[in-house]
Parts: sequence; C-alpha cells; structure tokens
Amino acid sequence: DLGRFEAAFTPRTKAVLINSPANPTGVVIPPEVLQGVADVCRRRGVVLISDEIYHAFCYDGPFHSPAEFDENVLVVDGFGKTYGMTGWRMGFAHGPKWLIDQMSVLQQFTFVCAPSIAQEATLAALEFDVSPIIADYRQKRDRICEGLSGRYEFVRPAGAFYVFVRSPRPSATEFVEEAIRNNLLIIPGSTFSQHDSHFRISFAASDATIERGIEVLRRLAR
Amino acid sequence: DLGRFEAAFTPRTKAVLINSPANPTGVVIPPEVLQGVADVCRRRGVVLISDEIYHAFCYDGPFHSPAEFDENVLVVDGFGKTYGMTGWRMGFAHGPKWLIDQMSVLQQFTFVCAPSIAQEATLAALEFDVSPIIADYRQKRDRICEGLSGRYEFVRPAGAFYVFVRSPRPSATEFVEEAIRNNLLIIPGSTFSQHDSHFRISFAASDATIERGIEVLRRLAR
Repeated sequence: DLGRFEAAFTPRTKAVLINSPANPTGVVIPPEVLQGVADVCRRRGVVLISDEIYHAFCYDGPFHSPAEFDENVLVVDGFGKTYGMTGWRMGFAHGPKWLIDQMSVLQQFTFVCAPSIAQEATLAALEFDVSPIIADYRQKRDRICEGLSGRYEFVRPAGAFYVFVRSPRPSATEFVEEAIRNNLLIIPGSTFSQHDSHFRISFAASDATIERGIEVLRRLAR
Repeated sequence: DLGRFEAAFTPRTKAVLINSPANPTGVVIPPEVLQGVADVCRRRGVVLISDEIYHAFCYDGPFHSPAEFDENVLVVDGFGKTYGMTGWRMGFAHGPKWLIDQMSVLQQFTFVCAPSIAQEATLAALEFDVSPIIADYRQKRDRICEGLSGRYEFVRPAGAFYVFVRSPRPSATEFVEEAIRNNLLIIPGSTFSQHDSHFRISFAASDATIERGIEVLRRLAR
C-alpha cells in the first residue's frame, strides 16, 4: 500500500530497504508497486536500497527490480543463494556512482576485497544454468502449498524459498518449540517482526525432508 | 617516548592502535615499552588495540604482545602475512569478552563469517612451519641494509618486511616518481603520515628484484 508506505516516512528517514522476492514471506512485489516505491523515494530524496539476493527464485513470472525505473536505486545482490555458495561470501552492488564511490572507500578500510579465490571461482558460476534448479524449487513450493492447504493459513509464495504461515496456536514461538520437539525446524515470525503470529518454513531442503515436514505440520494442525 | 605518548591523550580519546612489528617502519617496540603503553591505556580507561599482523616477522628476537601485560588489550591478527594468503581474507581477534561480544554482533550484521572454504584451508596453515621463510626474509633485510648503508639514512628494521628510508630529495613523492621511472616501485611516506620526507621499501620480493632495487637506489642516491 503506497499510501501507508509514504505515511511511514519521517524527516529522519535516510533510506528505504526493499527485498523482493522476500525473506521471510516469499512475496514478490509487482513491478508497478516497485515503480511506485521508487517514485516515492526519489520524490522524498531518500535512497532506495533493493536487496535482490533471491532474484533467481521467481516461480510465477520474470524478476523485476526497482532499478528498472530509477537509476538512483542501490541494488545489493550476491551469488550465495543463486548458486548455493553462501559460504564463499561473494556479493555485488550497483547503483549511482556517488554512492558506489563512498561504498568503495568503506570497503577499502574494512574488508578490502572479497576472497580472491572465490572471485575466480565465481566466474564459473556465471556460465552455470540454474533454471533446472529453479524448476525443482517451484515443485517444492507447489508441494508444500498443496500439503498445507486447508490446514494452515498462508500467502502462496511467488519467490524465494520460504512460506510464512499463521500459527495454529496463539504463540508462534510455542508452536515452533512444539515442532522442534517433533524434530522439525521452523522459525518463529518474531525473529523478523514484532509479531509472534506466524512461522517461517524454508523449502531449501530435500524432497524427503519436505514430505516429513508436511506430515509433522499436518499432524500438529489437528 | 611514553611521556609524549600520554601527552597526546585528550578527553575524546577512545582507543589507541599500536602495530609492532610496524608497517611502514619495520620497527619492533621493546616489551618494556609495550608494557608502558598498556599501563597508560589501562590507567586512562582507553582500549589498547594491538595490530599484530606481522608477529611472525621478527628478526632479532622473539615477538612480544602488549596482551602479555594486560588482559584488556584487544589483539587483531590474521593469517594473510604469515602464510602468504592475503587474498583468503582470514583474520582473528582476541581480547576482553565484553568487546569480543560486541564485535561478534557487528560481524553478524555485516560480513557474517570468513569464507568457509578459507576457514577449512587455514587449518592446514596451522601445521606449517614458517621459520625457513622468516630466515629467508631476515637475509633479505640484511642484504638491503648492507646495500643501502652509507648511501641512505634509515633505521634498521627488526621486523615486518619494510625499510623506511629518508629521501635524498626534499620531496619524497618526487623521488618515488623518479624511482618508478626507473621501474622500481617504492611508496612515499606521505601515504602513511603528514610528512613527505621518507619512502617505504617492501622486501617481500624475490632476491633478484631486491638486487635490482638496490642497484637503482644506489644509482639514484648519487
């Protein structure tokens, strides 16, 4: 809701951070909304930072970036999620020159550079077609949605690899503890917000793990 | 000079950073001075940060850390210089728990972790004896000091792999440019301080490069 979004600005607002596809909800923001967010930020003179780490994980349509609509958007992204190489610590950013220049100064005085070995290795990733992997993740998404349908309340995720599900108990934290006692690791929504009403499922898991997770959650929903 | 050191404190002094063996001078601070520095910092309630990245490169005696004298010293160190693996971005820190805990929070919200691949590889470094390499560096140090002796003014370095030499011209920057025109890369002291009176030689180079460097510098000293 762009009206509510703009109403949240204060004179102290320095930047807006957007993450689509989103962790923890799996929601993909439609391009017209991204454009609206970019427009508001430009009009307000506030930097829009677009965290696009899940850009490859779009199941129901092509990925869109707010940078398509405004060259002042700062995009932060990385190779970790797309190529399953989170431990290699390889990311990148692009955006307006004045900001990238300042970030380069900060880089020089903190971490200096990404690991040289990982930089070389990442060149191989650029040649790698992830579309079969994304198709596999789409099937995992579909399977979980089917498995939980009618038993749990959730917004069907269009991206990333998370489902954000309303807890069947008043306290999601207590529900998560119950799930963990059943050997199923899910994350309480309170990790991501001030609310304790939802839990997050990651489907970056094997099909066997997903089937067992669905079975446990269906049992706990009773 | 501990008196001058303490006189430099102001009410806004939050931390002291010490680097022994030192870049760019190659100076190794004697243990009694390190203890004096630690004492002043403790008395003043100021954190002493000891950058010990060159700890393995001590040519005339054992390495000493101010942490030997005060458990509140924050030591920052790394594997890059000792094991010739700067590109792997592996470092470590130790110090008082309250400070390490805060640094861990900062780590979690910035770079998260050192590359997992490099962490594994570094275990091999721990088994590796660098003493032959250090002996080789000691010979490089000796050779440069011999080669420049009588022609240049410098403090004989006891550690690291640098010699900090007074420029034979009023402007060290201009002298460095002259050296570069002779295909010798040295660094002007103005990179490290407000003075432009010295230049830095790195002897992390092959013996052939060092011989050629000595030859060029002897020629330019005329």
